[in-house]
Amino acid sequence: VRSPTVRELLAEALGMYILMVFGLSTVAQVVLGRGEFGQYLSINLGFGIGVTLGIHAAGGISAQRCTELPSIKTKLGTGNQVPRVVWRKRLQRRTVEKGGPRLATRGIGSRWCTRGSAQVLAGGTAGAHLNAAITITHCILGNLPWRKLPAYLLGQFLGSFLAAATVFGTYYDTLYDYTKGNFTVTGPTATASIFSTYPHPCTSLLGGFFAEFMATVMLLLGILVIHDEKNNGALKGTQALLTGILVLGIGLGMGMNTGYAINPSRDLPPRIFTAIAGWGVDVFTAGNYWWWIPVTAPTLGSLVGSLIYKLVIDFHNQSVPESGNEKGQPAIETSTL
Amino acid sequence: VRSPTVRELLAEALGMYILMVFGLSTVAQVVLGRGEFGQYLSINLGFGIGVTLGIHAAGGISAQRCTELPSIKTKLGTGNQVPRVVWRKRLQRRTVEKGGPRLATRGIGSRWCTRGSAQVLAGGTAGAHLNAAITITHCILGNLPWRKLPAYLLGQFLGSFLAAATVFGTYYDTLYDYTKGNFTVTGPTATASIFSTYPHPCTSLLGGFFAEFMATVMLLLGILVIHDEKNNGALKGTQALLTGILVLGIGLGMGMNTGYAINPSRDLPPRIFTAIAGWGVDVFTAGNYWWWIPVTAPTLGSLVGSLIYKLVIDFHNQSVPESGNEKGQPAIETSTL
Amino acid sequence: VRSPTVRELLAEALGMYILMVFGLSTVAQVVLGRGEFGQYLSINLGFGIGVTLGIHAAGGISAQRCTELPSIKTKLGTGNQVPRVVWRKRLQRRTVEKGGPRLATRGIGSRWCTRGSAQVLAGGTAGAHLNAAITITHCILGNLPWRKLPAYLLGQFLGSFLAAATVFGTYYDTLYDYTKGNFTVTGPTATASIFSTYPHPCTSLLGGFFAEFMATVMLLLGILVIHDEKNNGALKGTQALLTGILVLGIGLGMGMNTGYAINPSRDLPPRIFTAIAGWGVDVFTAGNYWWWIPVTAPTLGSLVGSLIYKLVIDFHNQSVPESGNEKGQPAIETSTL
Amino acid sequence: VRSPTVRELLAEALGMYILMVFGLSTVAQVVLGRGEFGQYLSINLGFGIGVTLGIHAAGGISAQRCTELPSIKTKLGTGNQVPRVVWRKRLQRRTVEKGGPRLATRGIGSRWCTRGSAQVLAGGTAGAHLNAAITITHCILGNLPWRKLPAYLLGQFLGSFLAAATVFGTYYDTLYDYTKGNFTVTGPTATASIFSTYPHPCTSLLGGFFAEFMATVMLLLGILVIHDEKNNGALKGTQALLTGILVLGIGLGMGMNTGYAINPSRDLPPRIFTAIAGWGVDVFTAGNYWWWIPVTAPTLGSLVGSLIYKLVIDFHNQSVPESGNEKGQPAIETSTL
Repeated sequence: VRSPTVRELLAEALGMYILMVFGLSTVAQVVLGRGEFGQYLSINLGFGIGVTLGIHAAGGISAQRCTELPSIKTKLGTGNQVPRVVWRKRLQRRTVEKGGPRLATRGIGSRWCTRGSAQVLAGGTAGAHLNAAITITHCILGNLPWRKLPAYLLGQFLGSFLAAATVFGTYYDTLYDYTKGNFTVTGPTATASIFSTYPHPCTSLLGGFFAEFMATVMLLLGILVIHDEKNNGALKGTQALLTGILVLGIGLGMGMNTGYAINPSRDLPPRIFTAIAGWGVDVFTAGNYWWWIPVTAPTLGSLVGSLIYKLVIDFHNQSVPESGNEKGQPAIETSTL
Repeated sequence: VRSPTVRELLAEALGMYILMVFGLSTVAQVVLGRGEFGQYLSINLGFGIGVTLGIHAAGGISAQRCTELPSIKTKLGTGNQVPRVVWRKRLQRRTVEKGGPRLATRGIGSRWCTRGSAQVLAGGTAGAHLNAAITITHCILGNLPWRKLPAYLLGQFLGSFLAAATVFGTYYDTLYDYTKGNFTVTGPTATASIFSTYPHPCTSLLGGFFAEFMATVMLLLGILVIHDEKNNGALKGTQALLTGILVLGIGLGMGMNTGYAINPSRDLPPRIFTAIAGWGVDVFTAGNYWWWIPVTAPTLGSLVGSLIYKLVIDFHNQSVPESGNEKGQPAIETSTL
Repeated sequence: VRSPTVRELLAEALGMYILMVFGLSTVAQVVLGRGEFGQYLSINLGFGIGVTLGIHAAGGISAQRCTELPSIKTKLGTGNQVPRVVWRKRLQRRTVEKGGPRLATRGIGSRWCTRGSAQVLAGGTAGAHLNAAITITHCILGNLPWRKLPAYLLGQFLGSFLAAATVFGTYYDTLYDYTKGNFTVTGPTATASIFSTYPHPCTSLLGGFFAEFMATVMLLLGILVIHDEKNNGALKGTQALLTGILVLGIGLGMGMNTGYAINPSRDLPPRIFTAIAGWGVDVFTAGNYWWWIPVTAPTLGSLVGSLIYKLVIDFHNQSVPESGNEKGQPAIETSTL
Repeated sequence: VRSPTVRELLAEALGMYILMVFGLSTVAQVVLGRGEFGQYLSINLGFGIGVTLGIHAAGGISAQRCTELPSIKTKLGTGNQVPRVVWRKRLQRRTVEKGGPRLATRGIGSRWCTRGSAQVLAGGTAGAHLNAAITITHCILGNLPWRKLPAYLLGQFLGSFLAAATVFGTYYDTLYDYTKGNFTVTGPTATASIFSTYPHPCTSLLGGFFAEFMATVMLLLGILVIHDEKNNGALKGTQALLTGILVLGIGLGMGMNTGYAINPSRDLPPRIFTAIAGWGVDVFTAGNYWWWIPVTAPTLGSLVGSLIYKLVIDFHNQSVPESGNEKGQPAIETSTL
């Protein structure tokens, strides 16, 4: 398929599918295994590993979107006819392209790649969103055109929904044995929490909203510091691993109150699946109609998290453009020889 | 030994031996230690570490197979006599060779290295198969000639069998004490599961087949996204580590139903060893003749997993050859100076 | 903001905030979750991950301080007019700058960057201190001017204090339920240890001081060996991860006696927060006025740790300047072509 | 100090000290904490992290030994006077030196660096031995002159002994409380196993010898596959991390029978310390005079492990020298321009 939009949809769907199969199956194994096959730490590790692999799956396709734009192809001709200054620029750009935050190359000839300081956020996600809250933040900040939003959300929805179905199928035997065929949201053999998040009994709606909001703020701060090339980001090619470790950390410390959805695409599609697959409308009414909090709180938290980062770190780095350039142009010295 | 086939056999045998000694000994320590020396998470970590080290052991030898072919040696002559276009090609090739997915260099002068888009899968395994299901998938996809199959399978069998014998020897004292010398497949002091996989009591044959199939699909998807250079693969030299983390993730979430063999070479040779070493034919009859499922389900899953990846990601990357080239040819710009 | 001092303060504050939110929230989850949502290992992991992310956040801004100094900007002119020897020097410097320990570039035109062998310690912290003991050690060793001290300490204090408030807010519901609203430092539902450290009941003041001192010595030794480019440091871009693993190791082995503050900025601000937020002056009187030990012992340990490293390793590497140069100047060979 | 021998002694001592403080203190925390501050997995992690940091500490100094030899200094003159072929060779050598397995550069003008295929083992240890068994293997294989042996062993002994003393001091309060001042090797409050290894009650002398021998064989196989540049080694700069993960894996699967000393320098000096510090001669007589097994079995295992690797992998790679060269000379292509 040559349509960038369809390819983005497929990439987000596959990445989300991988993320969720690893994550949800670990919850299933811990719950249905009655603690013999894992513990809470296993769940944290499972989602962390899922995130790492999901980014490896979805990061690349998205990164190629800009390179297909005609205006770039023209500029990147055969090489000898272009003036030296253009050619040098191209060198730099390719250097960045090969290992750098891929979305940074979007900045040429494409409306949604040009918005200056927004590139930090763009780079921060390295092509893979895998999170409706992050996709919406990109749209609000102007990194992604609003017309692209449906494809991203649909891809994430499909991947997440199919992952829930896959885990349901894989664990059907043990799930049936554990519940005696009675799938419930509450009670001693409650199993709905394998698929989507429910609040801790002691957590209020307001407290839960704040916990979910703060966990997503930390998620965004973490993603941005890991990927910010102008600051002190992680080694290229290890950023997916670090992002997985970040999500592991969120689960270790911010998981108890709300189950750390921190992502509407992680929570809503499996909830819909469980509503269909036998748990019924309880999945929406439980926890005092909890379901809308993992949808709205992460979206707000994602936006606020990226704004905090821009204010505290990125805005100041923008004001020293030269030193930023030096770091991004390792090939320049050679080209002046 | 100069014969590539024998060297491949030795490499697969050593890699498989390392993988299995680390994996099986951790199961032994958890079972025989009655939980004081580890838990289920330890087993997941043990197999993950074994996979990482096994790949480091077996990945290299295989990678040199193609460089010995006469047709390459000729082309890679002294350097100045070859036409510029050939030379540039050689440059690219060497660049890839030094750090890239090693099997990608097979593509010259050797029937089994040339099949275009199949290189993603080839690259995906980075020289080390360590899994009969993956070796067979390579053969079916045309990445490996069928005549090479027996050497790979034999190497894997030998390594796995010897590892089972090693762990048996190492743990003989504690094994004898734990079982009072009565090695059984079932019962309160069952120990056969130290060596090969048996299904969870609640898992049906069909459910087990599907679980094992899906776990191998996830294994292949994970291997391919970690190694795909054209997409968003992991940093070279860390891919073995990431593959170990992938197998850790599979154990965390897809281990309870079937024991996650996801690999005929991991399961069948130790099962044969236990049949000989005192557990008897029960190892084949237990679990309603379970033994054939960890042989067939992973083989099917491996094939389906790689086809899914080709359809969803790789096929679309193939259609943008230029941007793929740019990423694989870091030295070209320099060579046109 | 263009003022380096304000930017350093903001960077330290954000890094410290991230470190502490991850660390403290994990303690909260383990304590308030009554063991169901984590164990002691989770706390060790949580602080390790917090350190890694905090360094990624704070490491970059600090690194750019020197590049703003006028004397450098002049020297780094357009490139062709400078004599070869200067230009080569510049090349080296930039090479180091791009990937090396960032503070090493401070050495030009700025009093506090020039003190020769002190650069190892400077490099060792890679721009991010996140620890008042390390900041003070830098001042004593002459790596940081004393007039900068207040900004660093204030930034660390703010980040740490705000993190304590954030975790308090996030866990308010469960904290209230766990304590029935009675926040205490001791007793069966003591919760003050979520925020700051208290000694083990069997640990004496002297023993605690020594344990805290030794843990900080090990922290500094670890930081220095991870970052020492002249020795066998970790791969650039992975040093933040390794430092997190170092702190994980300290928690695994040196956490029981004192709670491993190893950092006045980690311990004192949250303690002051708890004094205000309802735990009262007990947080200072508990443990026989324990509070001053996590302030003084790490400061002494940090200084001693860096002196030990200088004596045993760094001093000897200094005496072989050429081989040190070779490692820092990968581009020189090319420039002589 | 300019004497290479003294510097090697100091480097081994510091590396060993770091390794052992992290390792032993974790055992102390698990034992004295009665399971509340860690579990068996913590011990495995503690020793793994200790190994990683110890290699970062000791790896560098050793690596510079050869660069001080007069014959090299002469060859590496000022650069322009040497014939092109020599200079090109120098380039290659420096390239290897900067990031490669450091000991590989020993091969010039120094008897103990020249023995061809032995370089794999030399490279495999990356400068840091931290293990008497590995040092002795180096001497037997001709990688290290026998006259160097005492300095290495003494350095390792000192570091290990001081680490035991440090952990004893750090945990004195809790140790005293746990034992009521009665330090014993056996019984319900036995604490000698905090410092050195004792066999599992079910393990015989012969079985223990074999388990310890096999664990060291796996250690050497792991070290060699991680560091072998000619095969599929780990990314440079991450090899210390991988070696730590290797030791974690050995603890997970080969720790129960014998306590996995796999290293005379890890076991004997702390045992002597405990004999002096109050546990008495029981530390030598316990386990049917167990003490000599962690000294001899690892030494034999280390030798056998490296021979196995040479036979199965390295010997075959040696027979294809050109492809080996290609991988070690990334700068050659450029130099022929």
